[in-house]
Amino acid sequence: MGGNSFGNIFKITTFGESHGEALGVVVDGMPAGITVDRELLDKEMARRRPGQSQLTTTRQENDQVEIVSGIMDGLSTGTPIAMLIRNNNQHSKDYSDIARIFRPGHADFGYYSKYGIRDHRGGGRSSGRETCARVAAGALAKMFLKSFGIEIRAWAKEIAGIRAETFDIDEIEKNPARSPDKAAAEKMVKAIADARSTGDSVGGIVCCRATSVPPGWGEPVFDKLDARLAYAMLSLGSVKGIEFGDGFASAGSFGSENNDPMLPGNKFAANHAGGILGGISTGAEILFTLAVKPTPSISMEQTTVDVDGNPRQITIAGRHDPCIVPRIIPVVEAMTAIVLADFALMQRCAKIQQ
Amino acid sequence: MGGNSFGNIFKITTFGESHGEALGVVVDGMPAGITVDRELLDKEMARRRPGQSQLTTTRQENDQVEIVSGIMDGLSTGTPIAMLIRNNNQHSKDYSDIARIFRPGHADFGYYSKYGIRDHRGGGRSSGRETCARVAAGALAKMFLKSFGIEIRAWAKEIAGIRAETFDIDEIEKNPARSPDKAAAEKMVKAIADARSTGDSVGGIVCCRATSVPPGWGEPVFDKLDARLAYAMLSLGSVKGIEFGDGFASAGSFGSENNDPMLPGNKFAANHAGGILGGISTGAEILFTLAVKPTPSISMEQTTVDVDGNPRQITIAGRHDPCIVPRIIPVVEAMTAIVLADFALMQRCAKIQQ
Amino acid sequence: MGGNSFGNIFKITTFGESHGEALGVVVDGMPAGITVDRELLDKEMARRRPGQSQLTTTRQENDQVEIVSGIMDGLSTGTPIAMLIRNNNQHSKDYSDIARIFRPGHADFGYYSKYGIRDHRGGGRSSGRETCARVAAGALAKMFLKSFGIEIRAWAKEIAGIRAETFDIDEIEKNPARSPDKAAAEKMVKAIADARSTGDSVGGIVCCRATSVPPGWGEPVFDKLDARLAYAMLSLGSVKGIEFGDGFASAGSFGSENNDPMLPGNKFAANHAGGILGGISTGAEILFTLAVKPTPSISMEQTTVDVDGNPRQITIAGRHDPCIVPRIIPVVEAMTAIVLADFALMQRCAKIQQ
Amino acid sequence: MGGNSFGNIFKITTFGESHGEALGVVVDGMPAGITVDRELLDKEMARRRPGQSQLTTTRQENDQVEIVSGIMDGLSTGTPIAMLIRNNNQHSKDYSDIARIFRPGHADFGYYSKYGIRDHRGGGRSSGRETCARVAAGALAKMFLKSFGIEIRAWAKEIAGIRAETFDIDEIEKNPARSPDKAAAEKMVKAIADARSTGDSVGGIVCCRATSVPPGWGEPVFDKLDARLAYAMLSLGSVKGIEFGDGFASAGSFGSENNDPMLPGNKFAANHAGGILGGISTGAEILFTLAVKPTPSISMEQTTVDVDGNPRQITIAGRHDPCIVPRIIPVVEAMTAIVLADFALMQRCAKIQQ
Repeated sequence: MGGNSFGNIFKITTFGESHGEALGVVVDGMPAGITVDRELLDKEMARRRPGQSQLTTTRQENDQVEIVSGIMDGLSTGTPIAMLIRNNNQHSKDYSDIARIFRPGHADFGYYSKYGIRDHRGGGRSSGRETCARVAAGALAKMFLKSFGIEIRAWAKEIAGIRAETFDIDEIEKNPARSPDKAAAEKMVKAIADARSTGDSVGGIVCCRATSVPPGWGEPVFDKLDARLAYAMLSLGSVKGIEFGDGFASAGSFGSENNDPMLPGNKFAANHAGGILGGISTGAEILFTLAVKPTPSISMEQTTVDVDGNPRQITIAGRHDPCIVPRIIPVVEAMTAIVLADFALMQRCAKIQQ
Repeated sequence: MGGNSFGNIFKITTFGESHGEALGVVVDGMPAGITVDRELLDKEMARRRPGQSQLTTTRQENDQVEIVSGIMDGLSTGTPIAMLIRNNNQHSKDYSDIARIFRPGHADFGYYSKYGIRDHRGGGRSSGRETCARVAAGALAKMFLKSFGIEIRAWAKEIAGIRAETFDIDEIEKNPARSPDKAAAEKMVKAIADARSTGDSVGGIVCCRATSVPPGWGEPVFDKLDARLAYAMLSLGSVKGIEFGDGFASAGSFGSENNDPMLPGNKFAANHAGGILGGISTGAEILFTLAVKPTPSISMEQTTVDVDGNPRQITIAGRHDPCIVPRIIPVVEAMTAIVLADFALMQRCAKIQQ
Repeated sequence: MGGNSFGNIFKITTFGESHGEALGVVVDGMPAGITVDRELLDKEMARRRPGQSQLTTTRQENDQVEIVSGIMDGLSTGTPIAMLIRNNNQHSKDYSDIARIFRPGHADFGYYSKYGIRDHRGGGRSSGRETCARVAAGALAKMFLKSFGIEIRAWAKEIAGIRAETFDIDEIEKNPARSPDKAAAEKMVKAIADARSTGDSVGGIVCCRATSVPPGWGEPVFDKLDARLAYAMLSLGSVKGIEFGDGFASAGSFGSENNDPMLPGNKFAANHAGGILGGISTGAEILFTLAVKPTPSISMEQTTVDVDGNPRQITIAGRHDPCIVPRIIPVVEAMTAIVLADFALMQRCAKIQQ
Repeated sequence: MGGNSFGNIFKITTFGESHGEALGVVVDGMPAGITVDRELLDKEMARRRPGQSQLTTTRQENDQVEIVSGIMDGLSTGTPIAMLIRNNNQHSKDYSDIARIFRPGHADFGYYSKYGIRDHRGGGRSSGRETCARVAAGALAKMFLKSFGIEIRAWAKEIAGIRAETFDIDEIEKNPARSPDKAAAEKMVKAIADARSTGDSVGGIVCCRATSVPPGWGEPVFDKLDARLAYAMLSLGSVKGIEFGDGFASAGSFGSENNDPMLPGNKFAANHAGGILGGISTGAEILFTLAVKPTPSISMEQTTVDVDGNPRQITIAGRHDPCIVPRIIPVVEAMTAIVLADFALMQRCAKIQQ
């Protein structure tokens, strides 16, 4: 229970806020004997870090991960792996003016209603910074999933209404938008820069794909693979929707079009399903798409109220991402890995003969 | 754990298959002292039953619910409420020809990969019939939510590409499509009938709204209210996507447009968010939309393989819904109620002063 | 969560009361492909049934178990196995005089404080009858554990202060006390009969042993094997204590005496530990002992109060066991099997190489 | 799931080993608005620390607790409270000689069987040091329980066969044995010193009492209050048994003796039950007793095997407690507080009217 743990066997518990001492994660259920690839961990953390491109915030963050338990001689021991990430360079003064005001589009009013406390310190538990912990845990999950040959990639399908029309997988990490279409990337970068200069923000759409997932993963009826992926992705701030395979487009199709015929070798002639049927992986490529709303922190003036109920105009200072899409991509991959790691372990318990 | 329970405090565990002896649900966490409204329960079950309209299957089902525990003198006792629904009138012979074949669009191959067993009996645990149990549990949740004045309604926003353009809440239960637009309903009904006559199926889009949900419900960071609703809805067979508030449309908007300004009295000038921000309810109307794919069971011939890997052509006999949308609507409401009941109870634990 | 489920992967959810329509259990996590041994199930239920000996109550119970899901062609399918046991022959009239009175030694006052309701119907959820459901689930667990060659036996070590001094495993099921010492059994039977005739009750001590449990089962730090067994056994009504291996006797020994030396072949020269060290099985025989208090339902007059706070003298009518020990023995075995089945499955997730 | 979390609503997740970088705990479910009493936290940590008396080890530990999240302005925010305790002064060299040997009485062989890895670093996850994290979490639980007026005290009832015959609550923290009987304490201290000088160890018995616990706490049927306390206590290393109230003594009594009569005002004329009946608190004092085995780490020579199966004689160097009893007492109180905090919160969900 509680909202701070996720998963059944491969389970992560995160803690910390953007303006506390540190944040971190405890990963439970990492099987013993896995090589802990420190380079992969650091690389994943770097992908998430702002300042990796001209598009993201200038807020400096150091995300050195300290592994404090669960490893011996470079291998997982089977005991919980705890990782700490210290909070540096978070200027509290950036936020003090809004201490008593509810920022539109944020969780401020929700948290205040829930706990009776307005924790104004940079978003607290609701800030984007807690995704550090998820990325660290996702790196461990990726290390485990290597044994299956599973690959997970996410990319920007659309930013500020500009769509990627072509797909070059190597282009994704070469441009700041993380678009697989170089030409579209340039336009996306420009649109984000324009938003920054007007003090506004833009949204987008993220696609994520997992290949080589064996068939049979998923725990009906409630812990279906797509249900759990949805649970994972909607727990990311700013995600407002998810669809699998053809998603909303399937609503307007016929069954004769939407059903994926099967071929010898247990292959599929098409993949409208997005790799999941009845909540269980089919062996086809898993594909889903996320709606990411524009960053709520904008510097344009907004109308709101304060904790005393007075109408207020607010201008949010500080350094904020004009678009969350490029930065959420490694987090989406991390959450996908975390979910798949859990289902891989649950599948070990499905049959008498493994 | 396991896929057969859902929820933390208000928790449901379902069991049974369409062709076993019975199905049922155990509801744990219903607070003591609630009046058990038998009429509401029966009405909800009736809404789900096929044969309620010319559009759904002719497969006769009796869904008399037998409450076997947890009630005394018409009140909940606080102990688990178990409800049984006997399986009548399920013709096994309808399915025997497909015993060894994987039906396209279904979970057959997934289950076979998972368990090493092809349970052909009418879809087994993956059939639509297990939703009976969810509706029964949802009725109990609705009884509890009455104390908050919460109302939950779902409707068909689109079927077979035909959109409801107007909204009359009383029209929903008056037409077989469950559309709030009478004119659109007539076209939807026709489109479904056409699909039935060609042996095909159609999909659609469902909207669901919950009003009077107090602000503050949701358990960040992982058990956010929208994340849990997504988990609940994607666990329904044939649901392929979900979006909250503006959803995918917010991807193409600016922050200055998408942020909902706040007004004195903690009201909102708009509701692009769909009633949930940062995973916590805001007090505004909760609104989400689901993509429902066309029913995979069609009688047109399809290409597939059997358990031995041989290519097969399959024609599914039996009686199947050409469109799941009208029937899924009470199930969507039930799952919404079950989720909200759980968060209502979790909110009781949030603060030292309740 | 909730008190009505037990276990992580092999998880049981029970429901029902002694005077409701039925009771039952849903078993989640039974791996697919296990032969369901109906004979073993019926035999376990018969062992628990009163009327199997002159010592237990004359309250007639029919414990025919109806398996309503999860089995096909005599094998587990991997989906949940639900079992129903109808309540017959429970005379409500036996309990009506005590509707408003708190019976000493029972949970009446506790439940009333908890729920605000005095459910007087034969003990409700707190009666011994709910152990039916546990025994049914335990039978399934035993079927799974066969693949490890694990055997579980429990017996009466002491009743009414009379100790079993010798141990003949075949004697256990031959006498009504379930004592492994025939001579002691005769005295035990007499002591119980004497208690019955005076309208009193007696308690005792139960031993339980599990052999051939592989080393390595247990999930430190909190889900240790002995911790979970204690959790399971203390959930049985009338159990007031548990000790493992030498238990309380180890408190008065030296480390040099208590430590079990190891021998080649990973054997142990002694077994003061009772087969569990650091919460993990060692491969040595698991042994624990339970304290069972005398049955609280006695027909002698007792001093108590009613729900209005008035002092009352109470004489409990009806038919009650003068000693719970013989009847709890199959339940103790069932709970042991349920716990071991869960740990067997969790162990499948411990290492990268299984 | 997993062994590293404990609790449903008030839930703790611990991490770390004695020889890793740090250990810590994440406490989830602490209601918002509770004053965090830093002095109480430090005092509880000091009670646990070795070197507080001549009886415990000379191994220096610094247990400064760093709270890294979940507090603002001295109050709990409702978000998870994470606490870190750095590992200082743990001499790795003390343990290297036993790297490949299974120490008798320890979990070494169990962990090796479980994970395929012999983590020799001072007991790893199985060492007594992880109890630091439990004590820190227990301090938070105690802060919450203050609002109920609940007091929890534990003491040494027996060490090395020497029993406390009198009870003076103020004496407990005045002598190194934590005995409430000053005369007995002197003998206990001597017995422990004797064991140290012979390189051996001794065990004992701990009593724990919780007063002012309201009636009604406990979640039948499986999450009974005594069952959960047993689960908590048996998870402590070296605890081999638990009994509630009269415990094993009740096995030899009559029902007429063991039943506690009730008196007006919902009081009890006796308390053989130890404050819990049917798994629910009765309002009477909760009392339980634990069996603590002698410390397995002794410096006398012992017979064992190594990971290659060779017979070995082992002499454990390093600094070890000759008796765990005095040091386990604050940990027993901490676990009791953690359990009661969880049940306090669960009780908030029991009835429609709170």
